[in-house]
Amino acid sequence: MTADAAHDSRSPRAAATITHYDDEADVVVVGYGIAGASCAIEAAALGADVLVTERASAGGGTSANSGGLIYMGGGTALQTALGFEDTPEEMFKYLMAACGPAPDESLVAPFVEHSVDHFDWFIKQGVFFKEAFFPDAHEPETDESLTYSGSEDCHPFSTIAKPAPRGHCASVMGSKGAILMNSLIESAQRSGVRVRGDHLAERLITESDGRVVGVVLRHAGEEICVRARRGVALTAGGFIWNDEMLERHAPWLRRCKMKVGTENDDGSAIQMGIAVGAATIRMDSGDITLPIFPPVSLKQGLLVNANAQRFLNEDAYMGRWGEFSLLHQDGQAWLIVDEKSFGQTKNIPDLQVMAGETIQELEAEIGMPTGALQQTVAFYNEHAKHQRDPLFHKHPSHVRPLEHPPFGALDLRPEHSVYCGFTLGGLHIDSHGRVKTPGGEPIPGLHAAGRTTSGISKQGYSSGISLGDGSFFGRRAGQALARAKPV
Amino acid sequence: MTADAAHDSRSPRAAATITHYDDEADVVVVGYGIAGASCAIEAAALGADVLVTERASAGGGTSANSGGLIYMGGGTALQTALGFEDTPEEMFKYLMAACGPAPDESLVAPFVEHSVDHFDWFIKQGVFFKEAFFPDAHEPETDESLTYSGSEDCHPFSTIAKPAPRGHCASVMGSKGAILMNSLIESAQRSGVRVRGDHLAERLITESDGRVVGVVLRHAGEEICVRARRGVALTAGGFIWNDEMLERHAPWLRRCKMKVGTENDDGSAIQMGIAVGAATIRMDSGDITLPIFPPVSLKQGLLVNANAQRFLNEDAYMGRWGEFSLLHQDGQAWLIVDEKSFGQTKNIPDLQVMAGETIQELEAEIGMPTGALQQTVAFYNEHAKHQRDPLFHKHPSHVRPLEHPPFGALDLRPEHSVYCGFTLGGLHIDSHGRVKTPGGEPIPGLHAAGRTTSGISKQGYSSGISLGDGSFFGRRAGQALARAKPV
Repeated sequence: MTADAAHDSRSPRAAATITHYDDEADVVVVGYGIAGASCAIEAAALGADVLVTERASAGGGTSANSGGLIYMGGGTALQTALGFEDTPEEMFKYLMAACGPAPDESLVAPFVEHSVDHFDWFIKQGVFFKEAFFPDAHEPETDESLTYSGSEDCHPFSTIAKPAPRGHCASVMGSKGAILMNSLIESAQRSGVRVRGDHLAERLITESDGRVVGVVLRHAGEEICVRARRGVALTAGGFIWNDEMLERHAPWLRRCKMKVGTENDDGSAIQMGIAVGAATIRMDSGDITLPIFPPVSLKQGLLVNANAQRFLNEDAYMGRWGEFSLLHQDGQAWLIVDEKSFGQTKNIPDLQVMAGETIQELEAEIGMPTGALQQTVAFYNEHAKHQRDPLFHKHPSHVRPLEHPPFGALDLRPEHSVYCGFTLGGLHIDSHGRVKTPGGEPIPGLHAAGRTTSGISKQGYSSGISLGDGSFFGRRAGQALARAKPV
Repeated sequence: MTADAAHDSRSPRAAATITHYDDEADVVVVGYGIAGASCAIEAAALGADVLVTERASAGGGTSANSGGLIYMGGGTALQTALGFEDTPEEMFKYLMAACGPAPDESLVAPFVEHSVDHFDWFIKQGVFFKEAFFPDAHEPETDESLTYSGSEDCHPFSTIAKPAPRGHCASVMGSKGAILMNSLIESAQRSGVRVRGDHLAERLITESDGRVVGVVLRHAGEEICVRARRGVALTAGGFIWNDEMLERHAPWLRRCKMKVGTENDDGSAIQMGIAVGAATIRMDSGDITLPIFPPVSLKQGLLVNANAQRFLNEDAYMGRWGEFSLLHQDGQAWLIVDEKSFGQTKNIPDLQVMAGETIQELEAEIGMPTGALQQTVAFYNEHAKHQRDPLFHKHPSHVRPLEHPPFGALDLRPEHSVYCGFTLGGLHIDSHGRVKTPGGEPIPGLHAAGRTTSGISKQGYSSGISLGDGSFFGRRAGQALARAKPV
């Protein structure tokens, strides 16, 4: 729910300098998703008086609507209990390879180093994890709490780092994101964190030296000025709901019919940061997935472009499917299956399917150049007989010849299916959530976390990274703010 | 030459507010490449007192070192004289298709609408164009003044807009960029434009309301404050020489061994703009080419990736080769040729070549999966016999079977060859070169043009676009500044 529907998200979020305050706190947190809640809990735990402002009526935001996976590892208690070996070194290698191009090592390193503790922290907040592993990536269907949530066990990542499942989620049959956020919000309440719901943050308040000292809120048409003695944290989501920002920075994301986020992910917090001199980075990047995690049997299929060329191992993470299809193949993608793989499929995704009794017929039906798909399937089948995939190194367990008619082509073009996307670019932060200027200096009094920032993932994604880095750098921002000298 | 080599490009370029000025002018232009020169000429033509500041000893910059092509069309006098039909409509269709994703129509439309006049303007500045067409894209080898400089006559663009050559350049046997800039600088001198060489612009000067009213320069260790009565134009190039900005925004460009630009293309003007509240857009984009324009005979070859799959029609513009290879194939690219195509080649590019008596041998030599290249070549040859390329629609004139041994593979991987790159992202401007805030409002007193800005090209490129939009929006900025109310 938008607090102020008439608000024009395109207007400048210029910084304000004022003298009269309506409220004050040590730490003011803008946005009450996982980054904001984690920030508030940690700041309060260190004795700070914390005020959270949220434009919706209640907290939760996109985090509450999410699948609830948190990317953690390096040997968490849950990984260990379930018999999975993992080390910070392997987790680091995976993330540096999978979150590129050019992930920021200064963020990835602490995220990995403290990941085991971070898992324990969630338990302390009352989040319950069940010692049960969900074997079919990427999101548990029932109440399991651990799963492979990226491409850890797929080529090329399995050759770069020892695979381990790192997608952790609260154990619940229903909405895992909602139960997670309920736990964090209850923990924040126990810590004495104050919350102003239905308050839209409009502008940061700065002093003449540029220090951020408060926030101007709007509530029921009135302007409310809040002083932040120790500083402000911007944790109010990304900009997938701002068409103009998308068009300007990441036009490819506009092809996603489903925007992953609430309508409050309109970039306003990013714009507030920019207005006080913050740098933004990787504004072009985003996560793209199909709204289905393909059933295992469909990984036996062949992902091909308009020329019937394969372009990715089909066992890769869905975000990688989306990225490769939309960024690198202009969205021209089909999944070729046969009766055996399709017939084994439970929960067949809601996609348009073309069919043919032969590959030749199917190729003509799709409109591919004559012979192109026949050649691709023949080459694949020849090696698949020996469970080999010399081109893309799909795991042998998914490799077998496609030879059982009829054959089908699932239409994965974004105009014919529903891609889900959200933004990954945003404010440039350091490992304590301090917001940087383009010159690399921290802006005094201003921190940020979550999808208001560019975090662990610079483009390559695995499920759980946003809840993972949002909570981790949210906590770090809260700690730093609580310890900051009051002004 | 850098005026102040000790200057730390990473330091913030914060705006200054000062009271004492050492010099003043109506219009202060920062940077004396084609955008700055065009801006200065136009402002002076409207009666403004213009001061250009340049950190090098003399003007010219990257424009002077360039190939000198200016992208113009829609029926210029030169196009018409040489018998090429072109219209603004066709030029608009081409640019909107070739400069994406999502080119800014509000920039492309006036650029196209006034292109014929823009050509005439260059003649008025003393630039000499010879009525001679260079048929082999993309840069004239001798003194011709018109050529195809992009992918106008290649698939898919030839199906979208009627092809016409739009690369215009000054007629000279030597450096076309240098002669162009000489003409413009001489024209500026005739107009009474003042120039301060060896002056590094460090910061913009703003008034309390945010209006830009001057520039702080550094010269021989001294700070010099210059008042700009009507405003400032930032025309000081892009950021290909700033590794930190590249790593942050466009890490893929770091794989280019050759940086197209002078060392002054370090992003300082972009940072100065940001420091006064300017928005940046498309900071991830860049132009990438191999340092060779492949001789026509090599277009008979096959451009393939590590799995021996083709990914682009080989007659496409070199910038498209670079973009597709580096952005979409992670730089894994080879050009497969046979003795006939290679033997016909004049000026063989300086590239590593692997060879084999058969395609099978060559495939093994490169290390491609067994059978993959054989299959690709067999499929291509089968159709090439009939001069058809059903997969990528290369023009029939370049299509013939590769069947004359020995066969070769030119290594186009960026680590094994020399890619040339420059940045295309920068300040967000409107069609009068006014610099925008993230909220879309113009910053009073601040204009920009050239590669300090995001211009016509948002990623897709054709040679001549940077000199084209730099000069065009430079002129528009100069006109707007000369007409601005003085403060």
